[in-house]
Amino acid sequence: MLDQKRVVIDYISPTINNGDFPIKRVVNEIVNVNAHVLADGHDEIAASILYKHENESDWNELRMSLAYNNEWNGSFEVQKQGYYTYKVEGWIDYALTWQHGIIRKIEDYQLVTSELLEGVDLIKSILNTVTKSERGYLENLQKIFSNKESYEEAILEAVSDKLHQIFYKYPKKKLVNSSSEFQIYVDRLKARFSTWYEFFPRSASKKEGVHGTFKDCIKLLPRVVEMGFDTLYFPPIHPIGEVNRKGKNNSTDAFEGDVGSPWGIGSKYGGHKDIHSELGTIKDFKSLVKKANGLGLEVAMDFALQVAPDHPWVKEHPQWFKWRPDGTVQYAENPPKKYQDILPIYFETEDYKNLWKETLDTFMYWIDCGINIFRVDNPHTKPFYFWNWIISEIKKEHPDVLFLAEAFTGPKIMQQLGKQGFTQSYTYFTWRNSKHELIEYVEELTKSEQREYMRPNFWPNTPDINPFHLQGANESKYIQRYALAATLSSNVGIYGPVFEYMIDDSLPNREEYLDSEKFQITHYDWNKKNNLISIISKINMIRKDEEALQQTNNIKFCHIENDNLIAFYKWNDDKSNEILVIINLDPYSVQSGSMQLPLAELKEFEQGLPVQVYDFISGNGYNWYDEWNYIELQPELPLHIFKINK
Amino acid sequence: MLDQKRVVIDYISPTINNGDFPIKRVVNEIVNVNAHVLADGHDEIAASILYKHENESDWNELRMSLAYNNEWNGSFEVQKQGYYTYKVEGWIDYALTWQHGIIRKIEDYQLVTSELLEGVDLIKSILNTVTKSERGYLENLQKIFSNKESYEEAILEAVSDKLHQIFYKYPKKKLVNSSSEFQIYVDRLKARFSTWYEFFPRSASKKEGVHGTFKDCIKLLPRVVEMGFDTLYFPPIHPIGEVNRKGKNNSTDAFEGDVGSPWGIGSKYGGHKDIHSELGTIKDFKSLVKKANGLGLEVAMDFALQVAPDHPWVKEHPQWFKWRPDGTVQYAENPPKKYQDILPIYFETEDYKNLWKETLDTFMYWIDCGINIFRVDNPHTKPFYFWNWIISEIKKEHPDVLFLAEAFTGPKIMQQLGKQGFTQSYTYFTWRNSKHELIEYVEELTKSEQREYMRPNFWPNTPDINPFHLQGANESKYIQRYALAATLSSNVGIYGPVFEYMIDDSLPNREEYLDSEKFQITHYDWNKKNNLISIISKINMIRKDEEALQQTNNIKFCHIENDNLIAFYKWNDDKSNEILVIINLDPYSVQSGSMQLPLAELKEFEQGLPVQVYDFISGNGYNWYDEWNYIELQPELPLHIFKINK
Repeated sequence: MLDQKRVVIDYISPTINNGDFPIKRVVNEIVNVNAHVLADGHDEIAASILYKHENESDWNELRMSLAYNNEWNGSFEVQKQGYYTYKVEGWIDYALTWQHGIIRKIEDYQLVTSELLEGVDLIKSILNTVTKSERGYLENLQKIFSNKESYEEAILEAVSDKLHQIFYKYPKKKLVNSSSEFQIYVDRLKARFSTWYEFFPRSASKKEGVHGTFKDCIKLLPRVVEMGFDTLYFPPIHPIGEVNRKGKNNSTDAFEGDVGSPWGIGSKYGGHKDIHSELGTIKDFKSLVKKANGLGLEVAMDFALQVAPDHPWVKEHPQWFKWRPDGTVQYAENPPKKYQDILPIYFETEDYKNLWKETLDTFMYWIDCGINIFRVDNPHTKPFYFWNWIISEIKKEHPDVLFLAEAFTGPKIMQQLGKQGFTQSYTYFTWRNSKHELIEYVEELTKSEQREYMRPNFWPNTPDINPFHLQGANESKYIQRYALAATLSSNVGIYGPVFEYMIDDSLPNREEYLDSEKFQITHYDWNKKNNLISIISKINMIRKDEEALQQTNNIKFCHIENDNLIAFYKWNDDKSNEILVIINLDPYSVQSGSMQLPLAELKEFEQGLPVQVYDFISGNGYNWYDEWNYIELQPELPLHIFKINK
Repeated sequence: MLDQKRVVIDYISPTINNGDFPIKRVVNEIVNVNAHVLADGHDEIAASILYKHENESDWNELRMSLAYNNEWNGSFEVQKQGYYTYKVEGWIDYALTWQHGIIRKIEDYQLVTSELLEGVDLIKSILNTVTKSERGYLENLQKIFSNKESYEEAILEAVSDKLHQIFYKYPKKKLVNSSSEFQIYVDRLKARFSTWYEFFPRSASKKEGVHGTFKDCIKLLPRVVEMGFDTLYFPPIHPIGEVNRKGKNNSTDAFEGDVGSPWGIGSKYGGHKDIHSELGTIKDFKSLVKKANGLGLEVAMDFALQVAPDHPWVKEHPQWFKWRPDGTVQYAENPPKKYQDILPIYFETEDYKNLWKETLDTFMYWIDCGINIFRVDNPHTKPFYFWNWIISEIKKEHPDVLFLAEAFTGPKIMQQLGKQGFTQSYTYFTWRNSKHELIEYVEELTKSEQREYMRPNFWPNTPDINPFHLQGANESKYIQRYALAATLSSNVGIYGPVFEYMIDDSLPNREEYLDSEKFQITHYDWNKKNNLISIISKINMIRKDEEALQQTNNIKFCHIENDNLIAFYKWNDDKSNEILVIINLDPYSVQSGSMQLPLAELKEFEQGLPVQVYDFISGNGYNWYDEWNYIELQPELPLHIFKINK
């Protein structure tokens, strides 16, 4: 193909798989675009970012600036939810090339009469696009440039910044090259900043031995809100299968009164669109959702796409399950492990279109009931393209809906779920314990391409994971783990009240809770207060005020000469909010060391003036005059959260 | 889109700009493909590379193997010149998933009667594709699996490696996912391995003051061949412009008898398809090309797409030049510099199609005269897409033709020329002098994506560059520079006899030769021999025998505890040839230090046995028993080229 264009555009970032997937942002977030823009020869090049929201028909144009070595930059803010499209275009700027040349020639005392005439032509080419007053100025320039009598004046005008500004403002684009188009999906802020609390509604009753209900849950809402959480997540609330129901501690023998696993969904009482009757009615549930919303709390629903053997789908849609040559149905398994209370969905069914549509319909049903957040159970055991379709379809109508991927599996699988559309992802934070592990992992999440599509959600524990380092841990360790999760990541969650009550008995040598609520009801004294609750609440309140902690990617770890002390600096996009967090990772001893302030990064650091810091935790303020500062943290209160230049 | 596929294929390498450009190889070279292949759930995945030459209609299939973490690898060899296409496909292997599961269950003492019946079905699905003997075996297995009496035998057979091999060999592909297609352009070996010698034919006469001719050049061919060069490159051989001809040392005043710059192409005697009459006739030139070829030497032509003011094109195609408002033609310039003897081509002309076609036609003319290699002058001042088209069109008919891009400019510009189709590229080697600079640059060329599309050609000097480090340098320095160029890079060239005669007077404080042959004829004693010539010849002979030196990318720098000693290990693809080069970078003093053998990389290293090395330079052999070995190099003979395990 004979393509006469001269500008080449290459290596645009951020992009994911060359545009196969959108990058992710939330409203009012910045997109920093970088591209290589080059051309043959010595001409001046210009480049723009063109972007628009899906509801806009015209492109917004933003001029890029040359950083170095043919790398161009530009930034814009996305202000609305939904899809944005952007691309880069580049062209030769003939007028600026002309001015650049004539300046050099005039400096070299060359006669530029002929060049001035070229200037006249260049001015002519933009005369119809400029304002009236600019037009007057330019027409006068044409006269001066054409007249040998006014040569001295002409060369002063030719090199002027005023002319430069006009040429820059009104480029005469010719042979423009445009890149492919790339997409950004913009979510509401909650996609990036959320504080989750999980509990089992069936344990909500204040009376021992009584099955908790949604009404009991309503009474617990103020407790959750006072702790500073904004998202209340319940394990599945659907009818629990009765066939092959699991007993306590995952026993295959259930006894009379055993309540089974809420993830064993479906029975003669209904399936994924129904409510487990012991929790209450759909009306009770809607009332709970409404009351929670009134308190600033969203309810997140568990979406576990699997069924108990007595789920209505098994009879209504037998083709959605795999039937074996001996006529039995395929149970869930990961050989040699068997999950006798669960049937997996057979995604390779020929009837997959109806299956996908019913799944979509189920999501839509709960969205209509007021649910805007789904924690999706084991998404990695269902096809990636299925999720892509489901999430896209829902987002088209309900852009507020968010999806948290509960996948603890290989890194590329978890990343792929993020690419395919999940809003947030569970992470390996649960097992990252040492300073080295934490830094390495957070750097991977925030400095690699993953920052553009995978939003981590840090959970110190879940009903499935009672990590070894929490088993038998003291209060200091619990404080550390929550502080790390809630300050390293802007999305955080705990499984309570197990976490804040420091209940951590486990099955022997396993990261599984003993007498897990997954298989039984637990009775708690929900009114009990403790120091850990106070600190969690305080950290959550700080997060609500400090934008630097409402995002994950802007982070820089600080040198601190002690492997038991971790320190990091965080900031919001315009650096109007800057936070420095320091945590003692040793639950038993005081730790001290010298910490290097990231002076080059601080927004308003001036040599000679102190860096003022205020510690939200102790309430103390300091003036730091030096780059290196002494830090000492007791295990009892193992953290500083400093606001910088408050 | 409801896409039922379960396998996802991601991050295929090597690819350039997601397939916008082909990667490059030469015949019999290996392509190592890596891809992320993943799926939901716990099933066994399989993946293949499919590849074919442009003349083949069927894909060749090569099974990939899992390295770790969903990364799959496979390698194939490209055997023919021209384009290859490749892609990756992935699928769920149900039969191997079944076998993997039944093995785990049998180990766990579970009853697998139902699984065996599934095995019968899986066998059935491939029965029509296997060989006759395999069919017999499989039909018998079906009986065994179906019969409860033979359960013990069945479980032995179910887990057997024989069954595994058959299932692996005959995958029943379903819901296969295929990646996009990527291209490879395969050149002849010379694209990767070439040894260039440049001289000015007009200086070829043995008589002082006489203009050299092609006939004189023919007499010099044995000298070039004896030095071990395989490519003879001449500056332009076309009529030299007479208007604004340059005088000696780039003076704008030419005097009677001044020969002008051969890059000022075109006069009343002709243009790009004509021969400068003082060099001889087209017949003489063809005769030279033929004689050179007979000696194993290819002649490379300079292709400089620019004209002197009196080039025929200026009258015949005035629209191919830029005319200024005052009626004059635009001369080449880079303000404030002017090139009065050169007019640039106006690529933005509306008549560009004819311009492009005439350029193509010019290349084709010289190809028909026997030229298969072009050194393209300043390609970066002509549009990238123009070169892409020109090179593609030529390669379609003449895949043997190679293009060396003479662009000394910004790195991304040089890289882009490689992407757009240039076979080889001049590099910054000319200015990379210290150990640190050399390692950093070679690592960039060979370890980054550039390795796939930019083939460096290392020149210690050119008529345009008399680098500061060679000005006044001693013989040792010249040896070092040639040795570095010819062993670090498999493509190398010198501008002679200036280089081997160590002529390095310069214009003051400039990297420009004094009395440059670009503007005058120089008289040389072409028969003069020296030590530098012997060493260059020896290095070139070693390169001809040792495949490890016929490629650039397989290189590993070795630790050596002296900043004046550089050491590197090179190998051919199958490591049947392994070379270790050590060079003293200090031209004045003996240097010594301890060098670490890259034991982990050596093909056949066995703990306890010595590494046998033979030095081509000194003729000495050594047995090295330790990882660290003492090295000492005199400035007089500042290099070792060791063959390993000879």
